[in-house]
Amino acid sequence: MALKTLSAANAAALDKDLMSIGAFSIDQLMELAGLSVSQAVYHVHPPSRGRRILVACGPGNNGGDGLVAARHLWHYGYKPTIYYPKQSKNELYQRLSTQLKDLNVPFTNDFPASLKETDHIVDAIFGFSFSGPLRDPFPAVISALESTTIPVTSVDAPSSWDIENGPPKEGPGAKFMPPFLISLTAPKPLVKLFEGRHFLGGRFVSPGIAEKYNLDLPEYEGLDQVVEIGKNGQKL
Amino acid sequence: MALKTLSAANAAALDKDLMSIGAFSIDQLMELAGLSVSQAVYHVHPPSRGRRILVACGPGNNGGDGLVAARHLWHYGYKPTIYYPKQSKNELYQRLSTQLKDLNVPFTNDFPASLKETDHIVDAIFGFSFSGPLRDPFPAVISALESTTIPVTSVDAPSSWDIENGPPKEGPGAKFMPPFLISLTAPKPLVKLFEGRHFLGGRFVSPGIAEKYNLDLPEYEGLDQVVEIGKNGQKL
Repeated sequence: MALKTLSAANAAALDKDLMSIGAFSIDQLMELAGLSVSQAVYHVHPPSRGRRILVACGPGNNGGDGLVAARHLWHYGYKPTIYYPKQSKNELYQRLSTQLKDLNVPFTNDFPASLKETDHIVDAIFGFSFSGPLRDPFPAVISALESTTIPVTSVDAPSSWDIENGPPKEGPGAKFMPPFLISLTAPKPLVKLFEGRHFLGGRFVSPGIAEKYNLDLPEYEGLDQVVEIGKNGQKL
Repeated sequence: MALKTLSAANAAALDKDLMSIGAFSIDQLMELAGLSVSQAVYHVHPPSRGRRILVACGPGNNGGDGLVAARHLWHYGYKPTIYYPKQSKNELYQRLSTQLKDLNVPFTNDFPASLKETDHIVDAIFGFSFSGPLRDPFPAVISALESTTIPVTSVDAPSSWDIENGPPKEGPGAKFMPPFLISLTAPKPLVKLFEGRHFLGGRFVSPGIAEKYNLDLPEYEGLDQVVEIGKNGQKL
């Protein structure tokens, strides 16, 4: 059994199919994706290990998944802090931010200082649509993630990694290897270079769409919105 | 400790607050509400007891919650069938229906026949905005639910019940006492007359909104989107 992956182009096409054939709204998909992320964090870092979670959000959909995850983490009893330096004017992301503010979740502008006061980090900066180069303030943020000893869960991709080829050859991210990754919908090719624990989330793909993209998705258990998978794509 | 409940008028006002103060979209709220319903069904009727679930959906939001629940139940391995006799032209409900059709979930027009071929029923016909009287085809459907021996999980209210005063004094629903009820956001006054197992769902209410409506919500456990509560509102 070999791990089947989804190229960046196909990941984008699959998302479009979910919204056209599947008739999902972006609100729904992001809610379920963020819920998956929150469950993966709970599995790798239960509240007993420390409740402070720094959620670093990028400007696009990956950041939106992080905002949703942060809200669910709050409801699980964590104390999230949001770093969201390039806030989108998109109405959905603004609403996701308001939902957090209504819970009094703090937003920070100082990533290095916040890094000293957290027990876990969610890297929701860049996902499958990232193609580089890193723009400010993200080179410094990626360098900080690369060198921190605090555990990081990356969403869909370790940020700065190329979706097909993995870590950049040099510069920020070249040595970034987070201990945890959650792939959304399906693993991307970069997972072949990933050495940590790997989860899959997004329990909403229909068999028709899975077949169209030649996905070989492991079965989720019970009510879980995530499943841990091994190097060959098998369920762990 | 007494169970605090939410009147029909306040339930409607709270929903409005979730969408204004809370900045939630109806897509998000319905996704999370339906997810809660699916989890309650899983708890009271795990797949090992029979996978066939008949989901009866009314024309409004309660029906929408049922459509979302049916999709999640499908992903858990159940075989849902949808009875949805008064389909809304509302775009959201149409999308929720399409999502089910993309999973090849069957829709039925024959409630009595479908009742003979199911292991569990989800009653998502009417919720907190119901004020009677029952219109066709629902009197016959409620009578069938009232007399069936197949277990029923009602969403927010046993359909036909008055939100404040419980079952109607006579006619269809007068003797309808489903074994399971899931209240969404907060219990409604009718729960004082309900004798089955009672769950609460809707893990998205902020402390500010809970305080505004004088809610005394039990704590959810772990990753659960539902919590079972007793007669006095205590967590079971």
